[in-house]
Amino acid sequence: MRIAIYGYGNIGRGVELAIRANADQELVGVFTRRAPESIQTLTGAPVYSADTIRDYAGEIDAVILCGGSATDLPVQTPLLAEHFNVVDSFDTHARIPEHFAAVDAAAKASGHTALISGGWDPGMFSLARLYGSAILPDGKDYTFWGRGVSQGHSDAIRRIPGVLDARQYTVPIQAALDAVRSGTQPELTARQKHLRECYVVAAEGADKSAIETAIKTMPNYFADYDTTVTFITAEEMRRDHADLPHGGFVIRTGTTGLDGAHKHTIEYRLTLDSNPEFTAGVLTALARAVVRLNARGETGCKTIFDLPPALLSPLSGEALRAQML
Amino acid sequence: MRIAIYGYGNIGRGVELAIRANADQELVGVFTRRAPESIQTLTGAPVYSADTIRDYAGEIDAVILCGGSATDLPVQTPLLAEHFNVVDSFDTHARIPEHFAAVDAAAKASGHTALISGGWDPGMFSLARLYGSAILPDGKDYTFWGRGVSQGHSDAIRRIPGVLDARQYTVPIQAALDAVRSGTQPELTARQKHLRECYVVAAEGADKSAIETAIKTMPNYFADYDTTVTFITAEEMRRDHADLPHGGFVIRTGTTGLDGAHKHTIEYRLTLDSNPEFTAGVLTALARAVVRLNARGETGCKTIFDLPPALLSPLSGEALRAQML
Repeated sequence: MRIAIYGYGNIGRGVELAIRANADQELVGVFTRRAPESIQTLTGAPVYSADTIRDYAGEIDAVILCGGSATDLPVQTPLLAEHFNVVDSFDTHARIPEHFAAVDAAAKASGHTALISGGWDPGMFSLARLYGSAILPDGKDYTFWGRGVSQGHSDAIRRIPGVLDARQYTVPIQAALDAVRSGTQPELTARQKHLRECYVVAAEGADKSAIETAIKTMPNYFADYDTTVTFITAEEMRRDHADLPHGGFVIRTGTTGLDGAHKHTIEYRLTLDSNPEFTAGVLTALARAVVRLNARGETGCKTIFDLPPALLSPLSGEALRAQML
Repeated sequence: MRIAIYGYGNIGRGVELAIRANADQELVGVFTRRAPESIQTLTGAPVYSADTIRDYAGEIDAVILCGGSATDLPVQTPLLAEHFNVVDSFDTHARIPEHFAAVDAAAKASGHTALISGGWDPGMFSLARLYGSAILPDGKDYTFWGRGVSQGHSDAIRRIPGVLDARQYTVPIQAALDAVRSGTQPELTARQKHLRECYVVAAEGADKSAIETAIKTMPNYFADYDTTVTFITAEEMRRDHADLPHGGFVIRTGTTGLDGAHKHTIEYRLTLDSNPEFTAGVLTALARAVVRLNARGETGCKTIFDLPPALLSPLSGEALRAQML
């Protein structure tokens, strides 16, 4: 199946490599709003202007959108769904219902199939929450993120005057993980679940104390957490913080039995060296499912909750039953 | 939806309790080949003779079969699929293709929907293997079982002359788990992955040394493993080994990136106080999906690979997207 990439940042580069790893997929090209000649792809894939993508409609089975959730995807995914099967990684949880409605209307009208909010959270973590709650209805689930880089929190620090660069790691707190795994179904505050570790490059002469206070008191992002701030040099940032690791845990604990005496724990854990490359692996598997669903005539907007798992695999139903069941 | 239980052993009792925990399901009754009046259900559910189940066809939306995989399910599931939507936990991995074919033919002919091989392995562990391989194609997966009671291995010990009772625990070996999680994709033998711990009640005057040798040299079951044998009293067996805990791990490690430099680990872990009660939780969620699929007109035999995850949850698509995605 022939896949196009729309937007060429970290996720777009990850998708380029993920398609190369899938024998049943080929990359049509990268579509960008930047000047195509300014971009050198990792694998030598061709680069085209985003404006021209409709000219390639006959050559593309699905478009994977790799823009941001804040301003790109809410506009781009519905527009592209008018002409293509599409997959995106829209991750603003609170706005998923409205994004779903907009994409669904466009995809249904054009007879295409769309998948929104692919990746690992939303995505694989969402699946872990759904399956866990369906299997253990008398229970509670917990999601922990990290240790990993939060781009949103890093960006929030970069907007503080005097900050040249920043990297924020979200760190799950071991005592909270232990309490959850014990099956006691504790109520945990934001502060009890995660630490926030910040590494900051300050401008020469900047007031570091003021920067630290600005970070630690920032509402929503940091005020409700125990936060550490460490000032480092630009060289240290390049050397020690170039990667984008991430991961986390979805843990559901619950009870069964005549008197609820039996405890059970379901734990889904990801440990990722590269958040964008892993996300890209999920997106290409979802693109496989989307193309197959469209071939069956199932149009409109879907989420990972709607996809029969077999459609994500290159193997046939027979092979899956024989080898993986 | 109205569910019937066919076969009333450990799994059947678990399903009885699991249905009670699901607000959208009610238990029609337990169907048994034993004398119905000889059985007292945990919740007071009515008990009927297995022979009469066809008389209840209009009152049953799905039958959950709770017999054994060796001789019960290969016969019962195809037969009941002629008259009902059915769910079973057939777990003889090597015979899944032929069981699937027999059930599929019966269910398609009668316009019913069947799900085979539900539970956690096959079942939730199978899903972990499928999703992991689809997301990280350049990788390898490992399944570890335990610490938990293997009924098949316990039964094998009980067949040795002089053995009154036995319990076998399968125990994953920590060094193997650590090696897998490191991402080095080791090749591991059966002996390197699991230990087998056996607790045996011997008859008075039995040759314990001969029993221990018979266990440790038993082909397929024990010969390829490091096995410990501990003789205990019947009282100790009742006191310390009454429960049926189980669980395990599915771990997929893989690499991404231009030169495969980024490692990733996906780990799905179950820790279960009661294997049959957890299995029952999976089976009732699958029954929900089967009834819904049948209402959509999707007939024939399915596996967990074919079920859109949303169908397992009592929540609507809108609620799932708003709360769990």
